[in-house]
Amino acid sequence: QDTQGLPDQRRIPINKVGIKDIRHPVRVKDRTQGEQHTLAHFNAYVDLPQHFKGTHMSRFVEILNDHEREISVESFRSILEEMRARLEAEQAHLEMAFPYFIMKQAPVSGVESQMDYEVTLRGHLTPEDYQITIQVQVPVTSLCPCSKSISEYGAHNQRSHVDLQVRARDFVWIEDLVELAEAEASCDLYGVLKRPDEKYVTEHAYENPKFVEDLVRDIARRLEDDERIVWYTVGAENFESIHNHSAYAWIERDKRTPLPDGA
Amino acid sequence: QDTQGLPDQRRIPINKVGIKDIRHPVRVKDRTQGEQHTLAHFNAYVDLPQHFKGTHMSRFVEILNDHEREISVESFRSILEEMRARLEAEQAHLEMAFPYFIMKQAPVSGVESQMDYEVTLRGHLTPEDYQITIQVQVPVTSLCPCSKSISEYGAHNQRSHVDLQVRARDFVWIEDLVELAEAEASCDLYGVLKRPDEKYVTEHAYENPKFVEDLVRDIARRLEDDERIVWYTVGAENFESIHNHSAYAWIERDKRTPLPDGA
Amino acid sequence: QDTQGLPDQRRIPINKVGIKDIRHPVRVKDRTQGEQHTLAHFNAYVDLPQHFKGTHMSRFVEILNDHEREISVESFRSILEEMRARLEAEQAHLEMAFPYFIMKQAPVSGVESQMDYEVTLRGHLTPEDYQITIQVQVPVTSLCPCSKSISEYGAHNQRSHVDLQVRARDFVWIEDLVELAEAEASCDLYGVLKRPDEKYVTEHAYENPKFVEDLVRDIARRLEDDERIVWYTVGAENFESIHNHSAYAWIERDKRTPLPDGA
Amino acid sequence: QDTQGLPDQRRIPINKVGIKDIRHPVRVKDRTQGEQHTLAHFNAYVDLPQHFKGTHMSRFVEILNDHEREISVESFRSILEEMRARLEAEQAHLEMAFPYFIMKQAPVSGVESQMDYEVTLRGHLTPEDYQITIQVQVPVTSLCPCSKSISEYGAHNQRSHVDLQVRARDFVWIEDLVELAEAEASCDLYGVLKRPDEKYVTEHAYENPKFVEDLVRDIARRLEDDERIVWYTVGAENFESIHNHSAYAWIERDKRTPLPDGA
Repeated sequence: QDTQGLPDQRRIPINKVGIKDIRHPVRVKDRTQGEQHTLAHFNAYVDLPQHFKGTHMSRFVEILNDHEREISVESFRSILEEMRARLEAEQAHLEMAFPYFIMKQAPVSGVESQMDYEVTLRGHLTPEDYQITIQVQVPVTSLCPCSKSISEYGAHNQRSHVDLQVRARDFVWIEDLVELAEAEASCDLYGVLKRPDEKYVTEHAYENPKFVEDLVRDIARRLEDDERIVWYTVGAENFESIHNHSAYAWIERDKRTPLPDGA
Repeated sequence: QDTQGLPDQRRIPINKVGIKDIRHPVRVKDRTQGEQHTLAHFNAYVDLPQHFKGTHMSRFVEILNDHEREISVESFRSILEEMRARLEAEQAHLEMAFPYFIMKQAPVSGVESQMDYEVTLRGHLTPEDYQITIQVQVPVTSLCPCSKSISEYGAHNQRSHVDLQVRARDFVWIEDLVELAEAEASCDLYGVLKRPDEKYVTEHAYENPKFVEDLVRDIARRLEDDERIVWYTVGAENFESIHNHSAYAWIERDKRTPLPDGA
Repeated sequence: QDTQGLPDQRRIPINKVGIKDIRHPVRVKDRTQGEQHTLAHFNAYVDLPQHFKGTHMSRFVEILNDHEREISVESFRSILEEMRARLEAEQAHLEMAFPYFIMKQAPVSGVESQMDYEVTLRGHLTPEDYQITIQVQVPVTSLCPCSKSISEYGAHNQRSHVDLQVRARDFVWIEDLVELAEAEASCDLYGVLKRPDEKYVTEHAYENPKFVEDLVRDIARRLEDDERIVWYTVGAENFESIHNHSAYAWIERDKRTPLPDGA
Repeated sequence: QDTQGLPDQRRIPINKVGIKDIRHPVRVKDRTQGEQHTLAHFNAYVDLPQHFKGTHMSRFVEILNDHEREISVESFRSILEEMRARLEAEQAHLEMAFPYFIMKQAPVSGVESQMDYEVTLRGHLTPEDYQITIQVQVPVTSLCPCSKSISEYGAHNQRSHVDLQVRARDFVWIEDLVELAEAEASCDLYGVLKRPDEKYVTEHAYENPKFVEDLVRDIARRLEDDERIVWYTVGAENFESIHNHSAYAWIERDKRTPLPDGA
C-alpha cells in the first residue's frame, strides 16, 4: 500500500513539491578548460494535481544521482523532462546553485589567480513552455562619486555584490556575464595582486566612481545592447565602508517592453 | 553641488533603490500585552525615474529613525507615504523582518514559556495601489505517515518550518496566523515541556502524521475558509530526520481565482 | 521512573550538557539610558559527572525564563549559581549573544543615529573560580597604508570587523570597549551621515591608514594601558574591497605575562 | 619602499596574521576512489614578531595556488613549512574546511546514494611542534529515550549533528570517523531510501534511543578504544523536533590523562 498514491479529497493543487537543499559534486561547462569540478545545492520540484495525496521524494534524488556527471545549461531541459515523466507531473522546476571559478590575470603583473562567483541556474518546464534563468553574483569594488567629489583626498570604497539574472535566446557563457559586470564596476577583484597591481586597482577605482545606481544602470545598458539577452534583472549591494548597512539598487527589464522615451 | 541630483542620460529607470539590512530596535503590536519590544532588519526602497542620477540614502535612515517607536501593520502605510514624499518617488517599498515572541502554555502541565517566530512585513505603495503582505515562519513538528504505516513501531519525525504569506482585507494578528499553522501541524513546539507534556506531544504527533504535502494543504484549507484572507502562499520545509536534505511543498493562491473542480 | 536520573556505567564525564541557541527578549544595562531592550541567543550548560545518565533540559529554560528581565554582567553570577544548584552540577557555563545599540552623533552635523554592535557575554562558574568574558564586535572602516603610499590618488578601504574579548577586574561598560576600538580604526561607522559628515569620514580615514596588523596592535596598546583589563584578545577582519577574501589579524594576551623586551 | 617591512615600535607581537575565508577547488584523498574533487574554504596565518610592521598577504594566496591540486592530511605539513619559510615566521596555521562525500548503500535495498559531511583540517607548526586536528561533522538521527519510555506509542526524533575532533598518532581516514559516529547514532542518514529502507531506519532508530548525552559518551567510548587517537572532542547537537532550540553535549579528552575511577 503506497500512502503517497492515495486519492486526495481536499482538492487543493500544490504548485511545488520536492526536495530542497541537497548537495552533490558536479561538473559544469567551462569556457577555458572545457569543464570544471564544483559542488551544487539543488532544489527540485514538480507540481502536484489536486487529486494526488503525495509525490515520491526518493525519485528526485535518483534523477540527480543519474545526471550529476553531466549537468549543464544544455542538459537542464532533459533533466526536467525526466522529472516530469518519472514524477507524472505537468510542471518541473530545478534550481542548481554552485560556486564557479575563473582564472584571472592581475592587471599589471599578469600573475594568475582564481576568483569565485556564485551561480544559480533555474529551469522551469511546462507542457507549453521551457525557460532557463542564469543568475551570477559578481563581487566588485565600488567607489562613491559623492565622497570623491566633496573630499580633498580619498573616497570611500567597498566590496559590492552585483547580481545578474538573464534569460537568453542564445547560449551565454557564465564568463560573459561576469566580464560584463566587472567591466562596469569601479574595479574588479583578484585573488592575488602584486604591488604594481595594487597601485593600478586603487587608481582605477578612483578614476571610475560609481553610485550603486550607476552600477546597475551601466550594466543594464550593456544587457540592452546584447542581442542574446531577452530578459534580465540587475541588482547591486554596496557593503558600505562608512555605514553598517548596505546601499542597494535593482532593475528588472523584459526587453520586449520599450524603455521610456525611446531610450 | 549635489551629485545625486544631476540629470541622467542613460534613460534607464531603476525599480528599487535604497538601503538594505539596517537593524533597529522596534516595538510591535501584541495581541496579549498591547506591544512587545523586538529588533527588526529593514530594507527600504523607492523607484528612481530615468532622468535622476541618484537617490538620497540618508533620508531613508532618517525616516526609520523617526518611526521606530511606533511601527506596526497600521503605521506601515504612513511610513511609505513619507518615503514617497521625501524621496520624491512614485513607488515605495518597505520590508521589516523581526522575531516575534508568544507566551504559550505547555499542553498538560500548563507551564508557560516563550516561543519565537520570524515575521516579515512587506509594504508596497504606488499612486494607484497599496499592498501589505504578512509573512510568518512557524516551526512545528511533522511526523511521516508513510514511516508510521510501514513500521511496526515508531515513525520518523522532525522539526519543520511552515512559512505563511497573506494579504488580508481586514486586520489579522500575527498570533492568528501562528495558531492556524500550529493547529495543522503534527504537533506544535514549546520552550518548556514537563514529562506529562512530553508524553502528550509525542503521542499527539504520532496520532497526526502529515506529509509535507498535507501540511501545506491543510493550512491552505483553513486560509480558504478565513474570509479576511484574499491571497496567500504556504510553504513547508521538513528538515528530514532520515536524510541530510529537506522535503518541501509550496502553494500560492489568489482566492479571487476559483479552485479546480469547484473545490 | 526518571530515565535521566539512572546511574551510568560508561564512566565518561561530560564537560558540557545543556541547551543551545534559544532566543529570548532581554533588558541589558545601558550607560546612557539605564537599560535597553534587545534579544539574546543563549547557550547554557553544566558538567555531568560520569555516574549520571542525563541532565534535566527543561530546568535550563525555566532558569532563563525567571531571569530574562534582569540579565546583566552583574546578574550573570547568580544565574550561574542557580544553574549549579538546580542542575546539581559542579560547573556552569552561560553564553548570551545580543545586538547592542548605541546612539551616535555624526562627526560634523551632529545628527543622531543608532549603531548596532554584536555583544557576547560568557560566564563560567566552578567551585574554585568565576570568570566572565565580554566580547564586542565593532564594525569600522579600515584604509590600506600600502595602497595609499603607492597610489597617486585614492586608497582602497572597506568595512572591517574588530572583535574584542576582555576579562576585567572592575566594571567595564560595553560602550567603553566600543569607543576604544572605534578610536583606533581608520574611521568609525554611523547610521546617518550628511554631506559634511561624509567629507569628514572620507578624509579622516585617508589620514589614518591602518593595516589589519595596525588595528589589532593599536587597540592592544590601549588595552595594555587600561588597568581594569587583565586578559584580552583582539581580532580584526578586513573584508577587502580589492579581493574576495579577508585579511585577518589576532592577538591574545594575558597581562600577567610580560610583553617581550619590556614593552 | 615596502610599507609592510618597516620596523614597528609598538612592541606587540601578533599571534596570527594572514588571510581568511578564501575558497578554492581542491582534490582530497578518498578511501574508496583514491581522491575526490571538492571545494575548500581556507584560513592561513603566521605569527608576526613585535618588530615587524606587517606581513605579505599575497604570498599566502600564492602558496595555496601552488598546492591546491594535492592537498591532503599528508601534504599539510609541507604547506605549513612553506608558509613559515616564505613568510619568515616562527609559527604557521592552516585551516581547510570542505564538504566530503561518501557513497552509501541503503540498509535493505542496497540502493546507492551520496552523503555529504563537513570536514575541517587544522594544522599548526612551530619550531618545536607539529599538530594536525581532523574535525568531522556527521548528521545523524537521534531518538529520545525519555519520550519513548513515557509514551504509549512513538518517540520524538530529529536530525542531530555529531561533531568530532581528533588528533591521532597514525593515519585515520575521514571515513573511519564518519563510520564510528554513525554506528553510535540512533540511526544514520541516507540520500535515497526505498520503502523497505524507510521501515528499517524507522524501527532501527526506535530500537536505539539515545539522549544527546548518550551520543557523545558512546562515541567517546569508541574513541577511547581506538589506539590511533590521542586526543579528541565529541559534541552533539539535537535540533529538537519538540522545541525551537537544541539539546547539546560536549566532551573533551586528552587520553594521556586517566579517566575517573580507572574507567
